[in-house]
Amino acid sequence: MAHITLQEDLPGIRGPMAFRPETAQPLNDLAEVLLRSENSLSRGDRELIATYVSYLNDCFFCQNAHGGLAQHYLACDMDFIDGVKKDFNAANISEKMKTLLAIAGSVQKGGKHVTQAQIEDARDEGATDREIHDTVLIAAAFCMFNRYVDGLGTWAPPDRQFYVNRAPQRATEGYANYNPQH
Amino acid sequence: MAHITLQEDLPGIRGPMAFRPETAQPLNDLAEVLLRSENSLSRGDRELIATYVSYLNDCFFCQNAHGGLAQHYLACDMDFIDGVKKDFNAANISEKMKTLLAIAGSVQKGGKHVTQAQIEDARDEGATDREIHDTVLIAAAFCMFNRYVDGLGTWAPPDRQFYVNRAPQRATEGYANYNPQH
Repeated sequence: MAHITLQEDLPGIRGPMAFRPETAQPLNDLAEVLLRSENSLSRGDRELIATYVSYLNDCFFCQNAHGGLAQHYLACDMDFIDGVKKDFNAANISEKMKTLLAIAGSVQKGGKHVTQAQIEDARDEGATDREIHDTVLIAAAFCMFNRYVDGLGTWAPPDRQFYVNRAPQRATEGYANYNPQH
Repeated sequence: MAHITLQEDLPGIRGPMAFRPETAQPLNDLAEVLLRSENSLSRGDRELIATYVSYLNDCFFCQNAHGGLAQHYLACDMDFIDGVKKDFNAANISEKMKTLLAIAGSVQKGGKHVTQAQIEDARDEGATDREIHDTVLIAAAFCMFNRYVDGLGTWAPPDRQFYVNRAPQRATEGYANYNPQH
């Protein structure tokens, strides 16, 4: 049971968002800009960064909700997503994405863990300032979302297929006008 | 020097916000709702929660920018703010605030660190569901803001009086229409 009284049929972040729509709006606006709006990083790659950070933070709801979206956009399966979580350097992703995931992993530990060498590695693979900026902010934002979801003791459907099944609808709806009731 | 090319005269979060106004807007909208809009927790108490979490995350810019605002709203001095950081249980704050700061401290470690006992302690001191919700989200949000500021390697004025001097202006301006150039 959640730490506060939330609508019981809404899992994960949907309960707190329905409870406090005033804060849900800027949270969803942030997710829309970071994860969906025009960007040289694909939606799939951005959802993969979000998934990896949520995995490091051990947030079951977020890593599966965004992992489901990542596999939808990247047209892969959840085994591929799990492979990235476990060892992204061994995964079949671009060298640039590996350097960005390394930065995201440092941000998850704390901002000061990001090293100049990690930034240089990303630049060497062609990452732009904006891509590095967005990677840092996506990783930082999921350190917030993950803590919001778990800090309030929300529940999450344990069947991972639930999130895969929802992904096409979530990809179509986007975040900006997200209705936590659906 | 920052990890990416930012306007050099802008310290802390102001550089990244000027660099990427599209993400600055929802970040500032979130800060406005959480820290300034109508609430049974005073602006001073909310800034104090933000300051405490920023201290735990060792983010110099955020703990002083928001510590300056907290001392402004609470009409105290920075020694008082420093006392709260070091040992809030020994500080001259309400028992309710002590229980909320304990929850915020757990959120900083990770969402799952919040215990049912901490929630019950807060309730026993009269905390409402919304106050508990907002405490969790303020703490989570500063785990984002702190990582954003330090993960991009921004600089911060070392003189703490800088932040105290700016606090009245920042309190008047608010966050929603924040201009990072000022």
